[in-house]
Amino acid sequence: MSTGSALLTDRYELTMVAAALADGTADRESSFEVFARRLPHGRRFAVLAGTGRLLEHLPRFRFGDEELDALREQGLTDARLLDWLADFAFSGDIEGYAEGELFFPGSPVLTVRAPFAEGVLLETLVLSILNHDSAIASAAARMVAAACERPVIEMGSRRTHEQAAVAAARAAALAGFAATSNLEAGRRYGIPTAGTSAHAFTLLHDDEASAFRAQIATLGVDTTLLVDTYDVDQGIRTAVEVAGPELGAIRLDSGDLPTLATHARQLLDELGATKTRILVTSDLDEYAIAGLMAAPVDGYGVGTSLVTGSGAPTVGLVYKLVERDGVPVAKRSEGKHSVGGRKTAVRRHDASGTATAEVVSSGPVPAQDGDRPLLVDLVRGGQPVSDASPRELLAAARAHHERARAALPAEAWALSRGESAIETMTE
Amino acid sequence: MSTGSALLTDRYELTMVAAALADGTADRESSFEVFARRLPHGRRFAVLAGTGRLLEHLPRFRFGDEELDALREQGLTDARLLDWLADFAFSGDIEGYAEGELFFPGSPVLTVRAPFAEGVLLETLVLSILNHDSAIASAAARMVAAACERPVIEMGSRRTHEQAAVAAARAAALAGFAATSNLEAGRRYGIPTAGTSAHAFTLLHDDEASAFRAQIATLGVDTTLLVDTYDVDQGIRTAVEVAGPELGAIRLDSGDLPTLATHARQLLDELGATKTRILVTSDLDEYAIAGLMAAPVDGYGVGTSLVTGSGAPTVGLVYKLVERDGVPVAKRSEGKHSVGGRKTAVRRHDASGTATAEVVSSGPVPAQDGDRPLLVDLVRGGQPVSDASPRELLAAARAHHERARAALPAEAWALSRGESAIETMTE
Repeated sequence: MSTGSALLTDRYELTMVAAALADGTADRESSFEVFARRLPHGRRFAVLAGTGRLLEHLPRFRFGDEELDALREQGLTDARLLDWLADFAFSGDIEGYAEGELFFPGSPVLTVRAPFAEGVLLETLVLSILNHDSAIASAAARMVAAACERPVIEMGSRRTHEQAAVAAARAAALAGFAATSNLEAGRRYGIPTAGTSAHAFTLLHDDEASAFRAQIATLGVDTTLLVDTYDVDQGIRTAVEVAGPELGAIRLDSGDLPTLATHARQLLDELGATKTRILVTSDLDEYAIAGLMAAPVDGYGVGTSLVTGSGAPTVGLVYKLVERDGVPVAKRSEGKHSVGGRKTAVRRHDASGTATAEVVSSGPVPAQDGDRPLLVDLVRGGQPVSDASPRELLAAARAHHERARAALPAEAWALSRGESAIETMTE
Repeated sequence: MSTGSALLTDRYELTMVAAALADGTADRESSFEVFARRLPHGRRFAVLAGTGRLLEHLPRFRFGDEELDALREQGLTDARLLDWLADFAFSGDIEGYAEGELFFPGSPVLTVRAPFAEGVLLETLVLSILNHDSAIASAAARMVAAACERPVIEMGSRRTHEQAAVAAARAAALAGFAATSNLEAGRRYGIPTAGTSAHAFTLLHDDEASAFRAQIATLGVDTTLLVDTYDVDQGIRTAVEVAGPELGAIRLDSGDLPTLATHARQLLDELGATKTRILVTSDLDEYAIAGLMAAPVDGYGVGTSLVTGSGAPTVGLVYKLVERDGVPVAKRSEGKHSVGGRKTAVRRHDASGTATAEVVSSGPVPAQDGDRPLLVDLVRGGQPVSDASPRELLAAARAHHERARAALPAEAWALSRGESAIETMTE
């Protein structure tokens, strides 16, 4: 398996480069803008995620012998193209919203400025990363909000592509998840990993008590015991019998969770395990989490709905040429309109610090009190501006997200479908 | 970035191994079964995909120094566990449905037989791969059917994780897609790649005619010109003017496609370009493809809806311990029931060769005329049974899928939500 990134690309980018090299337009100075025409699924905001991963990929976006041989095999044999690719290293500038920032329809979340041939080559990789990671982070932010202060754990690896799982764990952590089940996400990004046992471990043993004893012998009494393999009531009794009242937590993974959790809390308290926490993990999404608000639950594990974006597995970001040689350009036929020209963007806030509008302009925006500029330099002359590690980039994105979301108006947190929480004003 | 696969795993698998090593149950001979309790989204069948990719990963599922260091950093410091992992290489057997096979609720699509500790370790990787790839293949099969004999091209890389994109292209090809835009999928799996130009290429140029001339000069007159950047009518006239009546194809990427395609066909014919094909690519899914049945369209490009599984981004396959030391086991509390014991499975057919039932049994199934056994050996003693290359595995899966789908009853192809096309009988 190649570890390079250059072939994670749509073929048409290379045929466009070939044709542009031949007719002399490849060097035209170009600006490509990444934005979403609308928020998916009636969402009220979206969360930008993936920028840090894009910066990890950029140095690996090279056409070595293996890549060039693959292109030849696929019929891309144009000598001028192959020579150009062999020498290619991105030399342009990238600016954009800080990772973790919120975005709205028309927000210019990333702008790539480079000669046309260099900028067009990055289209697929940029969109793959930002569309995927932003979809997950946008769903995750709603789940974290629905959970209020209770911790949420990401455990969806098994419901998405094996590498997408690592990126999903990262996007969830960015949006406030407390931990992940994914060990590789722990390694790459320093996200705390969590998990203790599955039903298989209980079924492996001759009886539930043996399984619980084995787990406690190895993981300690502070572990989480899964109590719903046979009978939840009996499972809880056995758990406390084996672990004593200092048992860390029980996990419920099936059944009607509000009822079960309430009953489990009563039983644990009766058995003296008053500090034993209750974790729930069965097919949760932001709505189910909100529905458990009144239940005595101490933490949530979320899988499928997190890694599939809870109904919006992609956020519809597009990558459009908006300027070349200083001339604004845009598609003009029916449907799918864009606005030409390079943009600046600020988020406007009222006197209380609540966000009121996204101001996007082709020129400078006259500064008002409470305006926060949204664009930051990411890459200059092909080099990332920051030398932060992947772990540091994630930590910074998580902190930035926390600040940005604190300014959202209250109605942004409604789970129902609706309009964008703030209006995008084009000046 | 690690190229190994061992950390693409949920933490709880390792804590279970640690506890089972400590209490002596790690070696209990176990069978884990992969199956779906129901088909997602009212689908009438699902397509198994990913088995070939799992076989690619299996030899890389090893705990080297880098992996073991990562585990220590995450607090997994149990010496017995780490020693065992350092020596780990899967030694068990895997059997399952042939890749490309159809499956239904309860179909035992994969069974892993190994000592508990070895089998439990593979859970996340097996499910990640099979859930993702099968979701894409299941959506792709419906799109191919809706397109009848017209070719469908996969072009969704930008709407999913950058590595998931490669797997999605593979799953689509398995289910009958003609080509992909993804260059890495071309390299790894030998899938034909396709694509010529985007709106950016037209906007880069001073006018549409210059862009078309540049493309034809490099890609030849048989290329596909994208004609909807400004005005479709004028775009088509300019295309034929520049390319002549031998122009290969035009592409429409916006607007009301049935109307536009009909108009474009008339105009092309008037201009003498009677053999120029019409490709359409705007937000298509199986329903939109079906809606274009009567339109003069020669090929479809599908992006977002393909790579997101067209409403079902995962297929809900689970990995359950069904037997240990020869004893059938199963979870018994409310919800999420499983059936214990190792299974055999055959597909039953009527005299005309149409599939009528999926027969799943814990014992041998008494053979009837028209029964086709569904389980094949994949791995024996830790070694893949076949030494086929990734490209050969995909070709075999595509061929198998084509044969299996030919036996489906006609109602399986209804696009509306409904019941499983054949009943699963448990004997």
